[in-house]
Amino acid sequence: MKITAVDPFYLRMPDITTAADGTQDTLLVRIQTDTGLEGWGECDASPLVSLAVYCCPMSHGNIINIRTSLIGETIDGPDDVLRLSEKALRNGLDIQQIQHAYSGAEIALWDVIGQKLNKPVYRLLAEMSGTASIAHPKLPYASVLFGDTPEATHRIATRLREQGYRAAKFGWGPMGKFGEENDIALVRAAREGMGTEAQIMIDAGVVWGSDHETTYQRAEAFSQFSPTWLEEPLAPDAIDAYGALTCRNPSVRIAAGEGSNTYRMAEDMIVHGGIQFVQIDAGRIGGIIPSFQVRQLAEQHGIHYVNHTFKSHLSLAAALHVFVTNPDFNLLEYPAAGSELSQRLITEPFPVESDGLVRVKELPGLGVRIDTEAIRPYLAPVRIEVGTDAVFEQSSL
Amino acid sequence: MKITAVDPFYLRMPDITTAADGTQDTLLVRIQTDTGLEGWGECDASPLVSLAVYCCPMSHGNIINIRTSLIGETIDGPDDVLRLSEKALRNGLDIQQIQHAYSGAEIALWDVIGQKLNKPVYRLLAEMSGTASIAHPKLPYASVLFGDTPEATHRIATRLREQGYRAAKFGWGPMGKFGEENDIALVRAAREGMGTEAQIMIDAGVVWGSDHETTYQRAEAFSQFSPTWLEEPLAPDAIDAYGALTCRNPSVRIAAGEGSNTYRMAEDMIVHGGIQFVQIDAGRIGGIIPSFQVRQLAEQHGIHYVNHTFKSHLSLAAALHVFVTNPDFNLLEYPAAGSELSQRLITEPFPVESDGLVRVKELPGLGVRIDTEAIRPYLAPVRIEVGTDAVFEQSSL
Repeated sequence: MKITAVDPFYLRMPDITTAADGTQDTLLVRIQTDTGLEGWGECDASPLVSLAVYCCPMSHGNIINIRTSLIGETIDGPDDVLRLSEKALRNGLDIQQIQHAYSGAEIALWDVIGQKLNKPVYRLLAEMSGTASIAHPKLPYASVLFGDTPEATHRIATRLREQGYRAAKFGWGPMGKFGEENDIALVRAAREGMGTEAQIMIDAGVVWGSDHETTYQRAEAFSQFSPTWLEEPLAPDAIDAYGALTCRNPSVRIAAGEGSNTYRMAEDMIVHGGIQFVQIDAGRIGGIIPSFQVRQLAEQHGIHYVNHTFKSHLSLAAALHVFVTNPDFNLLEYPAAGSELSQRLITEPFPVESDGLVRVKELPGLGVRIDTEAIRPYLAPVRIEVGTDAVFEQSSL
Repeated sequence: MKITAVDPFYLRMPDITTAADGTQDTLLVRIQTDTGLEGWGECDASPLVSLAVYCCPMSHGNIINIRTSLIGETIDGPDDVLRLSEKALRNGLDIQQIQHAYSGAEIALWDVIGQKLNKPVYRLLAEMSGTASIAHPKLPYASVLFGDTPEATHRIATRLREQGYRAAKFGWGPMGKFGEENDIALVRAAREGMGTEAQIMIDAGVVWGSDHETTYQRAEAFSQFSPTWLEEPLAPDAIDAYGALTCRNPSVRIAAGEGSNTYRMAEDMIVHGGIQFVQIDAGRIGGIIPSFQVRQLAEQHGIHYVNHTFKSHLSLAAALHVFVTNPDFNLLEYPAAGSELSQRLITEPFPVESDGLVRVKELPGLGVRIDTEAIRPYLAPVRIEVGTDAVFEQSSL
């Protein structure tokens, strides 16, 4: 079949705040084919900047936009996804944003191919890599922001426990901003609210920059509350600082990797940063294949792979297919409290089942359906003119 | 003084081809202040994608555009440039294109500050870093594309020699695409055209991907023509392949680094790729400061720093200030055959002086003036609408 259209859609809530809440807007990518099959993907990135990568005028042979790379191409199987990814990334060699932007298209291509071949994406990945194709359930952890105070954090944690969550990650907000005592009080509140049986994770939101000494001290201080990990204490580029931190074997394990815009960045973080949990967003790193490659690298290094997902359950679907066949990687970042937009984006979100676990859908492609009616009110139509040309006009949703 | 306006301008030639010629379009950034002083910078990147980083609507606290970060800010000295860079990059943490886009603004900030303090940028850098502040001349190498055939390449090389060039780099085009014999014939033609006294460099234009074995064989085969370096034989992300290549000590030294979108990418290439020439584009890596930091890293590692410059002499000015105070780094990539646009962009391009060398201008700031009259015909006005808002309307040049 042939690709006939590649359309990005910028969706957003009416009011956007500076909170570290990635569900306030999104960029969806729809790929249509001449057979009537269509696939969808989601990018975790600036919608406008990524959209520009779909339509930017050519600058030379290394700056050619994604639409030009894909429209009119043949796509019949997984090999075509690989071939087209190589083409799109090569054509965009000098576009820094290429991986962020292409992620949505790559995920949509897998969705299309899975539907055509009538298989879930995870099975296509298993066939391609010659690995086991049994899907295992995951333990979802709720991913929430710290409250502004320890008391507010305690209330959030208590509510999550009442909702049945056995694991929760608390992040950003006041963490790291008001001294050690407050940091410890925040973690204590999270632990006490969730109870001793639950898993808790701490996301420091890059607050200590390259200060691995303070990070080490916090890790030691937090260890009395037994968090599963301390996440992103340092800047994504501070690989040497991560290395200096992890070689001291802090009492809490270190997680990072959501800032990996390329496979190499994740590899660099694993090999030279020495992290023990690598967190990959398929909507940033270039889609499902580079995420799967990082999963394989994590397996080789004996560390944990975890998804990073802070958009909708469309992103969650893509994330699940990447690592659902590895039973050891049993934790799942699970968007639990996102915006109305993120909650209405697909027709049937992934439920937390009665055993407290989340399962991939045994359906063709990603296995989820976009609720176009529900999200149409959130569409922010984009129009871009360069010189006398309209290089982007909004397609209808 | 206060920053009152930050304006990107998309300029382009009437016809754009797929040739590896980065001078067919450009993105300039103008920063204006309430004192009437204004500065300019140039980005080597997709103009539209980078422009979007100046105006994209906020997504959350990690996706805030460059204009929002800079307009209204105070800027009185080099410390303010550092502070504003930190702010802009932190605000754009989740914008992959942030370094490509911010480069132009950062260079423009240095231009403003240099004018205000009445000093060339290189002296401000020397003061800041406590290093020598004597500017040394550079040997320009003409940077040209291979001809389509060895014969065409010989003609190009002969013409460069007649023009007085004592060094020239030949790149891209047919290199690596038609087998070993043709590759060798291309290099022989370059050498014979330039003569035995000249320096020649070979730019393979990432043609061998991650194939370090073929690269090694070519390096050995090319060594009979004594090229100064073999440049970018492999993909920018193929760090392990670079490491495998360089640890065999090929008979021609290896150069790379123009694809460094961040300081860490350059560091990764130096430390783990083992290259001997690191080539940095101040218009990609985030501006003058990260380039200067790579220069310092090169000094620590005992390897060579070289500029990557394939835009106009505005970019050349920024490039020069970064490394003009180190006499050992004596080569300069010198745009010699760019588009009419690139040649008309500043009022007084850097001449190759009678001794065959190029010198930085001992004038405040970057030391060059934009020829706004000359480039106005190349302006491609941009307009971007998101929802009912015009998020970008073209300012006048």
